[in-house]
Amino acid sequence: MAQRLDGKAVSEDIKKNLKSEVESLQQKYTGFCPGLAIVGNREDSNVYINQKLKSAEAVGVKARHIKLPNTSTQDEVLSMVQSLNDDPTVHGMIVQLPLDTVNEIDAHLVTNAILPSKDVDGLHQSNAGKLARGDLEDCVLPCTPAGCLELIKRTASRVKLAVVLGRSKIVGSPMSDLLTWNHATVTVRKGDIVVVAIGKPQFVKGDWIKPGAVVIDCGINSIPGRRLVGDVDFEEAQKVASWITPVPGGVGPMTVSMLLWNTVNQAKRVAEADVELKVPVP
Amino acid sequence: MAQRLDGKAVSEDIKKNLKSEVESLQQKYTGFCPGLAIVGNREDSNVYINQKLKSAEAVGVKARHIKLPNTSTQDEVLSMVQSLNDDPTVHGMIVQLPLDTVNEIDAHLVTNAILPSKDVDGLHQSNAGKLARGDLEDCVLPCTPAGCLELIKRTASRVKLAVVLGRSKIVGSPMSDLLTWNHATVTVRKGDIVVVAIGKPQFVKGDWIKPGAVVIDCGINSIPGRRLVGDVDFEEAQKVASWITPVPGGVGPMTVSMLLWNTVNQAKRVAEADVELKVPVP
Ligand SMILES: NC(=O)C1=CN([C@@H]2O[C@H](COP(=O)(O)OP(=O)(O)OC[C@H]3O[C@@H](n4cnc5c(N)ncnc54)[C@H](OP(=O)(O)O)[C@@H]3O)[C@@H](O)[C@H]2O)C=CC1
Ligand SMILES: NC(=O)C1=CN([C@@H]2O[C@H](COP(=O)(O)OP(=O)(O)OC[C@H]3O[C@@H](n4cnc5c(N)ncnc54)[C@H](OP(=O)(O)O)[C@@H]3O)[C@@H](O)[C@H]2O)C=CC1
Repeated sequence: MAQRLDGKAVSEDIKKNLKSEVESLQQKYTGFCPGLAIVGNREDSNVYINQKLKSAEAVGVKARHIKLPNTSTQDEVLSMVQSLNDDPTVHGMIVQLPLDTVNEIDAHLVTNAILPSKDVDGLHQSNAGKLARGDLEDCVLPCTPAGCLELIKRTASRVKLAVVLGRSKIVGSPMSDLLTWNHATVTVRKGDIVVVAIGKPQFVKGDWIKPGAVVIDCGINSIPGRRLVGDVDFEEAQKVASWITPVPGGVGPMTVSMLLWNTVNQAKRVAEADVELKVPVP
Repeated sequence: MAQRLDGKAVSEDIKKNLKSEVESLQQKYTGFCPGLAIVGNREDSNVYINQKLKSAEAVGVKARHIKLPNTSTQDEVLSMVQSLNDDPTVHGMIVQLPLDTVNEIDAHLVTNAILPSKDVDGLHQSNAGKLARGDLEDCVLPCTPAGCLELIKRTASRVKLAVVLGRSKIVGSPMSDLLTWNHATVTVRKGDIVVVAIGKPQFVKGDWIKPGAVVIDCGINSIPGRRLVGDVDFEEAQKVASWITPVPGGVGPMTVSMLLWNTVNQAKRVAEADVELKVPVP
């Protein structure tokens, strides 16, 4: 029976570490305060946004939700992004797409208007390009795949042959890249690591899984009248796998903690660069 | 016995089409003249550069070789790139890296200083990001993988399961992406299409190849005292494959013709955008 890979616990762990990192950075750089702006136009009560705001507060990231009216035009969204690009108190920004407005908004354009260094969702094409070509050093990683990789690392499995189902910009494609550059061979056959991100409830059955594999289920599907389920048939798969993430409580919480990780990291870079600038040239 | 996939012939074909495309664009847009700048500091007699210059002339692309002294600094290279970015007669630019200078030059920095729309080598991280995430519409593709795909298309094989050996920025990684977005599943097992780009002379043997596969050999290795050989053992592989590219005369010429294709295409976009701007608003 597979061990449960507890994303909730791992993400609490990451947030605890982030909190103390923020505290020590505050010692080092006076006034250090990582800022996150969440641009959206859904309800304030939106559960995803609330989770992000609450977790941000807990680790010392100053987050604010900028709620746009549903009459916003594309130009208005773009100038909001521009003003956040220019705002030195904002180190990370995410735009919750698709925006629900009466006007047509080009999601692609909006994503790529964000400064790559503030793109804590890791979706800007220049961050995607770095990831795809293995330039990981100053690349901001998309949160869900980054969270999956953290979970995989906790299993201490050697990543050799990995399978990724799905190729979206947010999950599947960056996940394949991350695994490739972490020395996995990514294929479609049965692998030691199976990451599933296809958005189909309980689609992957037990006999698709190589015995002893680590199964990472990104899916979040709500079945009417029942609780949330993943893309993997958990009951079956847990009998075959060595490790498996539950839904909920697996990948989901990791996404939030990696978002905060990205934000703190980008704030740290700015602080470091500022100090470098201020060091008098001898 | 495999049919030979004649890159030289296909590239002649592409260049012929490009020539007539340039001619008809000249009819349409007065003064239309695609410009290509090749920045380097190797000998003018360099065979690769000469091939590019000669082919450019043949199709009506105005190419010039800008030879930098070997004392060039990084700043000088970057300001050369900047001036070509600003030059409206230049629609495509390539910097032959690594530059052979006495000063250290950050190749990464130089590549990403080129305007993505003039990056006809397709190596800028934003072009890489578009390719990696399947935004192919206004993406400039790297020439060697683009040439390989053209060759694959000529075999009229249905791309299903493809194998790519190698994951460099120039060949392997973009090739995997291109195949993925052309609906192949890319894996490491024996595939219907095998693209080899590992830089090891005659490394891939006949029994690695699935019978009937299409074999695309990107390798260019010179064996002392002998002619150029590819990364695939041609003698063996041709007995197993259905199609195979020779070395030389396979992928190599395609790279040049795709470079010109990219240049003409970018020049065409500029011409089209100019016309759009000039159309009076009613
Ligand atoms: N935990 C978290 O924080 C997050 C969870 N998610 C969840 O992860 C899942 C995937 O999300 P996302 O990537 O955005 O989804 P998308 O719908 O954007 O992409 C789904 C991908 O799966 C592929 N796919 C669909 N069906 C099949 C199939 N039968 N076989 C093979 N591939 C298939 C699609 O292929 P093709 O490209 O050919 O169409 C596509 O690439 C969803 O359940 C979503 O709710 C997403 C983001 C964050
Ligand atoms: N025809 C043309 O116009 C062009 C031809 N070429 C030729 O193509 C070939 C590849 O070029 P390029 O991609 O630039 O080369 P690189 O040396 O940059 O990359 C080689 C890649 O192959 C991988 N590799 C090496 N050995 C093995 C092995 N035994 N098994 C699996 N993978 C292996 C490396 O892996 P790792 O990442 O782990 O190091 C690396 O990703 C060369 O022969 C080159 O001359 C290149 C450009 C243009």
